[in-house]
Amino acid sequence: MTDRPVRILILGGGFGGVYTALTLEKLLKREIRDRRVELGLISRDNYIVFQPMLPEVISGSIGILDTITPIRRLCPSTNLYTRTVDKIDLDRKRVSAAAGFGSRQCALEYDHLVIALGNVTSFAGQPGLAEYALPFKYLGDALALRNRIIHTLEEADIERDPEVYKTLLTFVVAGGGFSGVEAVAELNDFVRSAAKAFRNVKPAEIRVILLHAQALILPELPKSLAEFAQRLLMKRGVELRLNTRLHGATADAALLVGGERIPTRTLVSTVPSAPNPLVAALPVKKEKGRIIVGRHLELPDHPGVWAMGDCAWVIDARTGEPCPPTAQHATREAKCAAQNIAAAIRGGARREFSFTALGKMGSLGHHSAVAEIFGIKLSGFLAWWLWRTIYLMKLPGLDRKIRVATDWTLDLILPTDITQLKTGKPEGIRREYFEPNEIICRQGDRGDWLYVLVDGEVEVVKSVPGQGEVTLRKLRAGECFGEIALVSDQPRSATVRSLTSVNVLALDRDAFQALFSNLPPLRGFFEQLIEARLKGPGDRMA
Amino acid sequence: MTDRPVRILILGGGFGGVYTALTLEKLLKREIRDRRVELGLISRDNYIVFQPMLPEVISGSIGILDTITPIRRLCPSTNLYTRTVDKIDLDRKRVSAAAGFGSRQCALEYDHLVIALGNVTSFAGQPGLAEYALPFKYLGDALALRNRIIHTLEEADIERDPEVYKTLLTFVVAGGGFSGVEAVAELNDFVRSAAKAFRNVKPAEIRVILLHAQALILPELPKSLAEFAQRLLMKRGVELRLNTRLHGATADAALLVGGERIPTRTLVSTVPSAPNPLVAALPVKKEKGRIIVGRHLELPDHPGVWAMGDCAWVIDARTGEPCPPTAQHATREAKCAAQNIAAAIRGGARREFSFTALGKMGSLGHHSAVAEIFGIKLSGFLAWWLWRTIYLMKLPGLDRKIRVATDWTLDLILPTDITQLKTGKPEGIRREYFEPNEIICRQGDRGDWLYVLVDGEVEVVKSVPGQGEVTLRKLRAGECFGEIALVSDQPRSATVRSLTSVNVLALDRDAFQALFSNLPPLRGFFEQLIEARLKGPGDRMA
Repeated sequence: MTDRPVRILILGGGFGGVYTALTLEKLLKREIRDRRVELGLISRDNYIVFQPMLPEVISGSIGILDTITPIRRLCPSTNLYTRTVDKIDLDRKRVSAAAGFGSRQCALEYDHLVIALGNVTSFAGQPGLAEYALPFKYLGDALALRNRIIHTLEEADIERDPEVYKTLLTFVVAGGGFSGVEAVAELNDFVRSAAKAFRNVKPAEIRVILLHAQALILPELPKSLAEFAQRLLMKRGVELRLNTRLHGATADAALLVGGERIPTRTLVSTVPSAPNPLVAALPVKKEKGRIIVGRHLELPDHPGVWAMGDCAWVIDARTGEPCPPTAQHATREAKCAAQNIAAAIRGGARREFSFTALGKMGSLGHHSAVAEIFGIKLSGFLAWWLWRTIYLMKLPGLDRKIRVATDWTLDLILPTDITQLKTGKPEGIRREYFEPNEIICRQGDRGDWLYVLVDGEVEVVKSVPGQGEVTLRKLRAGECFGEIALVSDQPRSATVRSLTSVNVLALDRDAFQALFSNLPPLRGFFEQLIEARLKGPGDRMA
Repeated sequence: MTDRPVRILILGGGFGGVYTALTLEKLLKREIRDRRVELGLISRDNYIVFQPMLPEVISGSIGILDTITPIRRLCPSTNLYTRTVDKIDLDRKRVSAAAGFGSRQCALEYDHLVIALGNVTSFAGQPGLAEYALPFKYLGDALALRNRIIHTLEEADIERDPEVYKTLLTFVVAGGGFSGVEAVAELNDFVRSAAKAFRNVKPAEIRVILLHAQALILPELPKSLAEFAQRLLMKRGVELRLNTRLHGATADAALLVGGERIPTRTLVSTVPSAPNPLVAALPVKKEKGRIIVGRHLELPDHPGVWAMGDCAWVIDARTGEPCPPTAQHATREAKCAAQNIAAAIRGGARREFSFTALGKMGSLGHHSAVAEIFGIKLSGFLAWWLWRTIYLMKLPGLDRKIRVATDWTLDLILPTDITQLKTGKPEGIRREYFEPNEIICRQGDRGDWLYVLVDGEVEVVKSVPGQGEVTLRKLRAGECFGEIALVSDQPRSATVRSLTSVNVLALDRDAFQALFSNLPPLRGFFEQLIEARLKGPGDRMA
């Protein structure tokens, strides 16, 4: 026996990672206490999100902090590193994590490595989605969506332009799987109930639209349940757009494949998930981006390295089928891997992984749900009651169970909460995307942004009394516009319109002035540019 | 009688503004219904914050959303504009509000204007405070402080450097008035209770320090109560530094007048408040930055313009004394102004403002408080019980009362919540401040930021094996450093140290690369700079 403890390092704070730590703490209790085993877990957040309850954060029927459980309380004997993972080095058996305060990274060595990094949201390849679509995966996403909904209601309440008003009151969710359906159901309930507090918003003018690529939503469920869900959503006022795919987005529209535009300020996309970049960078065998593991959940060519959950390609030992990426499976895989790691350390037989899902459930909000449990199909109130009961039981931590049960009780008697919690400072730099023939900035508006053209072409036009619209100039990639309004504090003196698809980089007033006044080459460049443009044809520009 | 309604516009969503709207809704019920009067209120947020309960958000003993009440529910007949005010034009009787979605401002005209804009936090004149001190005024501030405390505990738990560990576990609050004392009491309770969940943090090593400029905290209260509060805080482990003023801050220290440094990563400053810039810009008579109003709360030279609360200089009609800036006074001033506005519209006698404060209370956390009510002094549990009862009664909205009462009940039985809710994206551009002889970036660290020197002087040094530390160059305002590590993705190859006080602008990797690759003059500049420095003396630099 060596002097130093066996080091087990777990990557990821989702169901896979946390349940591995939790199970190992139980199995290796004595070894951990005697410091013969050291358990570490790296997680971006110090809590685990209980995904099934995330949609209820939108409506505020569950308190913001009550769907999440602190990992430290679940795994008190594990060293938790609340950091992001920077790099995994399988050869040197070393993982580096990003810096905390200050800028020193931390490097951790391991004897056993557990990879449970899940997957990530990726909008790659769909123009404008990264800029304008709201993802729905983390707690922050649910909060951001809630705030967006309230913000659009606030704006609609004081908007006088009927077109803008309609756009503000249209809400689009893309993706009719479990996560999209639960999100659209909760969004629909929330927006219709919250709207009552707004004196100028007419509930009949609210549109909630679900886009789904196939002919029937909830492909994971039997047809009859999916049809029940469709009827129920439609009855509640959700418009279903089936056989419809999202192509992209602009600031004020969802763009469909085929060319149709749905004017909206709120587009939620639950569809795209991609492999975690850390997993993608690993030099190991993969199938569909997921790490191939053996029957004991260990990597075939890397003894001591284990993987599970959404980032692993696990074959069920009994059925021979690949396991689906669900929390149910991740939890069971975690327990199996933990047992095998304990066996590897203490000796003993390993276990092969096999698990049959108990069932599937989807909440439809407002006292209704669909469920298939042990092959029995349920829908409506009973399914909803089961949904709440089962998930309340599964929610990790007794204190959370009490808090959520209390939330649900209060929610029955209290009105919908409509406070908009603004956190996060405004961004100094952001990317924007425009389709051809859109207005990027408008003559007469207040100028708060400087734009750098990343690609595409725009024209600068000015409406001159008596002459109509005059084109001042065209601009191409690498050129910028909007600087005069930022420097002079006057309204935009011209309109800039996209001629092609256009990606721009926008800098706000503060960021611009900070850079402009402090970085000599930039100051010189803008001084010359402004001088040239002020002298240029047709008077000043935007 | 004219055709159009009389327009009353209220600026500010604090106690003054909201209670004016609320009282006017009652007094002018018929006129509003018949559209003879139109009521508008502009507020940055769509809720009113109940300040006395803000400290409890730190510890999570009150739910995040439960200390705030939606203004729409309190004032259902008022048009709420959830915007920031851009400009007040008293001559044209017009107010413009910032744009919502898109970039169109909105302009609102008024017949009666109510100015209740309060004051703002200002760190001007204290170096480093704007960059590093945490204010404590808004709900977002309380959340940010909570997250900072948890973040420092997370980092302390995995920190191996004893100096850094001590710095992380030191918490400093500046200002011993009500707000500072309540914040330090709650912070102290929270950090000591939360620390139990961290396996490597030793509670005895936590330091919580209160800085106060005078010899006794809580100058608003009688001496015996202030002394009680001091004893209690000290018993709970708060270090009191009396007759001590804060001079400034760096990223890892609070700087005191006289030169002492207290190493810390958490500095809360409750001291500085300054006039709202909108009020400062108004061409009206002021006293100590507050708008002078007549006995009816109307501006002497501007009939139809009213002011109240922290931004107004109100003389009590009975005592002849100026009114203190408290919520109690703002609420009563609001009611008086609303009555006088109603009288101005319908005719009737005006009322002069006079009010004697009922008392003062300060919570000390953990079942203790101090209070002086109708001249009677109370301290300890009874004062705490009164504090809770009175503030629960005053909390606007029945649903909030129920939620807070529930929160308090759960808090008695459930463990302290330690989840760190990260919202808000990382900033792309930020300002930083360094005292002379501090390290700005360190050789060997990961390079995530490009720095532009705004003022001051720095030296670039490199430790060379066998030669010790070699100075490569000195840099002055307008020069930048750190670009090579950003471009090459390698650790910093040199250390940069401040020679004087230094202000820098830091751009993160994403912001730098976006600008660098898209803005030709910047790209050219950096390409030349990097080439020159790579060729330069003593090999490459940071």
